[in-house]
Amino acid sequence: MDSVEKLSIVKIGGQILADPNALKSTINAFHKIDGPKILVHGGGKKASALSSQMGIAPTMVNGRRITDEKTLDIVTMTYAGLINKKLVAQMQGLGNNAIGLSGTDGNLIQAHKRINASIDFGFAGDIDTINVALLRSLLKLKLSPVICSITHDKNGQLLNTNADTITNAIASAMTKLYMVSVYYVFEKKGVLLNVENEDSLIKEISEKRFAVLKNSKQVHSGMLPKLENAFDALKKGVKQIKIGQHQIISNAYAGTKVISA
Amino acid sequence: MDSVEKLSIVKIGGQILADPNALKSTINAFHKIDGPKILVHGGGKKASALSSQMGIAPTMVNGRRITDEKTLDIVTMTYAGLINKKLVAQMQGLGNNAIGLSGTDGNLIQAHKRINASIDFGFAGDIDTINVALLRSLLKLKLSPVICSITHDKNGQLLNTNADTITNAIASAMTKLYMVSVYYVFEKKGVLLNVENEDSLIKEISEKRFAVLKNSKQVHSGMLPKLENAFDALKKGVKQIKIGQHQIISNAYAGTKVISA
Repeated sequence: MDSVEKLSIVKIGGQILADPNALKSTINAFHKIDGPKILVHGGGKKASALSSQMGIAPTMVNGRRITDEKTLDIVTMTYAGLINKKLVAQMQGLGNNAIGLSGTDGNLIQAHKRINASIDFGFAGDIDTINVALLRSLLKLKLSPVICSITHDKNGQLLNTNADTITNAIASAMTKLYMVSVYYVFEKKGVLLNVENEDSLIKEISEKRFAVLKNSKQVHSGMLPKLENAFDALKKGVKQIKIGQHQIISNAYAGTKVISA
Repeated sequence: MDSVEKLSIVKIGGQILADPNALKSTINAFHKIDGPKILVHGGGKKASALSSQMGIAPTMVNGRRITDEKTLDIVTMTYAGLINKKLVAQMQGLGNNAIGLSGTDGNLIQAHKRINASIDFGFAGDIDTINVALLRSLLKLKLSPVICSITHDKNGQLLNTNADTITNAIASAMTKLYMVSVYYVFEKKGVLLNVENEDSLIKEISEKRFAVLKNSKQVHSGMLPKLENAFDALKKGVKQIKIGQHQIISNAYAGTKVISA
């Protein structure tokens, strides 16, 4: 099967969405990718800012936003509205035929409300299915899907789902049809041994090394779900996963490579 | 050319978006339409409410919103985010494969910033082109586009465009490929001689009769652009245009028929 087409998936998060220069560089790097490509984004910081402006305090438990009805409205407005459409307009300005989508559009990402005995996460969604056929149809139309981290339950309810988790789920599902590479773009050069020191970059991280670093608490807490998602995606057939700044998209030596060995 | 396929375009506006029961009935009626269909919506009242909540007063001139940068952010969040995604989720719940889009998605609606010597409308967009090929591709995938009234200039800038104007432009452009019917659904039974009296319904209105009624100030000001758009669309080849409550979609006798003769 060496005729399988490549698919690149770029996730932008962290401070990138709040930094116009970093965002522009990332969008440019995305634009330069040859072949089918998908962009995934969240926008937690912007949603938190908007919540405060409207007098609604965001509640977090274990790094996850607790999504009550008002918060769901705010994340929907921010992710699917403001951030998604601004990203798409910027890409269209570069000549990249982007199309913005949430998980409810074309039933792209079906999820269910999270069930947890100890914490009520509210309208948080755990993913059931990715609509691979829809993504393939859009990619064949030479469109670049720009996907925000809103899902739905196929019963009329929107849900809020972590953008890294969505990236992993899409990447894993698309391995049926494509040779998939994933680029997690954020504000650091990659996974760092010391989060304050960019020279402490780990060039390659395997699950084994991750376990050691995690035990000795040498991995930043915000990095844990990203890496756990990444190892899971590799097991599901994703070909390549990198973490770092926008340079990881075009430069094979930049950033941290997540490896299975 | 009697083999030309029918296309139904439903515009929802006015108080419908703010009335859950009327909205549900309209979505149900849309769902029951056979064949390719498109829904268009704005959301002015919701955007105004959100503006107030955030301490930004909306400014209107001649029934048009003056769109400064903050207002553009709010309408983008409200139309493309909250309203669009809730509509799509509700439709998906009914088994209608809806896909939410703004004018920047897939370069669906290209516009330019309105140039006006006397009033600065800010980020208000006047339409240049409708991407007929994209709509046809999506309709062929059995998707129902749900289009909000946000456009873009293909140079990175989002713009705010009147939803009736968008409906008219899409309907006119799609006459190249389809036999197009347009249903303007709002809270009244149709065009009324006396806006307070539902029994004063005008069953049919031609451009000639409209001119007479307009001169004697018997047409409600909010109805003027809708009707002017409708006469323009008929001239451009749209087959049927109706104005009224959701019943106009399935009941040939309900509402006001806009006619060319």
